Amino acid sequence: MKRTKVAIIGVGLLGGSLALALKGKGGYRVVGWNHRASSRRRAAKIAPVAASLEDAVRGADLVVLCTHSNAVLAMLREITPHLGPRTLVMDVSSLKGALAREAARLPGLEGRFVPCHPMAGKETSGPEASDRDLYRGHYVFVTPLRGTPPRNTARAAAFWKAVGAKVLSWTPDKHDKRVAVTSHLPHLLACVMMERFALAAARDKMIRAAVGTGFRDFTRIAAGHPAMWADILTLNDKEIGRALTGFRRRLQRLERDVRARKRGKWLSFFGKARALRQSL
Amino acid sequence: MKRTKVAIIGVGLLGGSLALALKGKGGYRVVGWNHRASSRRRAAKIAPVAASLEDAVRGADLVVLCTHSNAVLAMLREITPHLGPRTLVMDVSSLKGALAREAARLPGLEGRFVPCHPMAGKETSGPEASDRDLYRGHYVFVTPLRGTPPRNTARAAAFWKAVGAKVLSWTPDKHDKRVAVTSHLPHLLACVMMERFALAAARDKMIRAAVGTGFRDFTRIAAGHPAMWADILTLNDKEIGRALTGFRRRLQRLERDVRARKRGKWLSFFGKARALRQSL
Repeated sequence: MKRTKVAIIGVGLLGGSLALALKGKGGYRVVGWNHRASSRRRAAKIAPVAASLEDAVRGADLVVLCTHSNAVLAMLREITPHLGPRTLVMDVSSLKGALAREAARLPGLEGRFVPCHPMAGKETSGPEASDRDLYRGHYVFVTPLRGTPPRNTARAAAFWKAVGAKVLSWTPDKHDKRVAVTSHLPHLLACVMMERFALAAARDKMIRAAVGTGFRDFTRIAAGHPAMWADILTLNDKEIGRALTGFRRRLQRLERDVRARKRGKWLSFFGKARALRQSL
Repeated sequence: MKRTKVAIIGVGLLGGSLALALKGKGGYRVVGWNHRASSRRRAAKIAPVAASLEDAVRGADLVVLCTHSNAVLAMLREITPHLGPRTLVMDVSSLKGALAREAARLPGLEGRFVPCHPMAGKETSGPEASDRDLYRGHYVFVTPLRGTPPRNTARAAAFWKAVGAKVLSWTPDKHDKRVAVTSHLPHLLACVMMERFALAAARDKMIRAAVGTGFRDFTRIAAGHPAMWADILTLNDKEIGRALTGFRRRLQRLERDVRARKRGKWLSFFGKARALRQSL
């Protein structure tokens, strides 16, 4: 049986974990590529590295772009001339709307690019952190462009299922709207919390002793990669802005409740929050 | 050598853990008491339970009130007639300002009550969750009233050090100001996030699939006990209101930054948040 050739462009945590998961499966031939020579040397410990980007994608059945949001489009342009007519290209970046709109206009790629977003990750990065079970049991959102042949969407879904993921097919815009609420807004709030804490600590050093487990949990995401988050904030500005404004207006009403000191109202507010959190 | 008699009023997670830690030390005789008969039966598995509240505190060298914020004052009134002249009373509730002001006016308690707040806990509660190492390495804030003899503040500090805690002596008001930033505001924000999520999920069920590890970390504290938090919100309203207003105004300015889409500004914002979070 001919093995499926998978080119992984950008062998870091996500790409490296994909390579390990596919190796474990059998039936796949994985080839990696990284832009920088030093990254290629690190990647070589995980998967065979091609001689060039062109070599990596040539003859590939599947190409997975494991680069940051703002690098995907340039990469698509670069590889398109070397793709076979049946090659399927996917990415793993965290935003889909802007990418889908731009990718739809790229000449020569018609129907062969299916944007994907695996909800998997760690706080560490780099190929050394790779984990063959990274995708197992996690959701991957497959967000086809309008006009993508259903067969290609199905191929993308089957690929992620093969590495143990649960797959949902969403439109790119619905995807961005949902993650604005569950990922981007919390990230922003955690970072604002760190900023407020820094202000308080500048006036009062002792406040550092009042940091407990709750504060650490709440702000853990603030340690995320600044460049990745700067991309997300500029690419998903509309949805993040909407979620942020709704949140801020709610806080404004809450300020009145704080002044009113109505214990019964707080009991119900905290009771609902607790029940919903426990149901997640 | 005469053993130190410690009365623990309210043998739950905090009181039970204290009892276990003291048992391990030697030199202490621990007696517990719970208001409800069913709680007394559960407490009896951790420490000997007295025949009555009066019996528990009579002849005690130290009394530790391990009840919620809004129950401490009533308990102080109840036990004061039975305290010896050298008995030291402490509590473990999360707010100190209002309590210290009220306690200063209680007749007969002069100088013998030192409010304390251990920064230790778990999401589980009840004596069954007790852990002899709960306080080890954690901060305990000792917040004496004006007029408390320094000797009694020192006794409180020595007691917490004996169970492995690190002790800082703060004024009650500074304490409440600090925890408003590091604990109460984050709790409120996590609960508002759950409320916003509930609103979004009511319109769009699929958003639940977009909940990842980050969202779970960020909202973990929202599962805290509603009654305890309702007390905190009504007792520390001024400091929480101040912290909330500052946070909300910052969000308002941030909405403009989201619309401006300046990647460089975001890089610096996220870079600072990350560096500070990593330093905690």
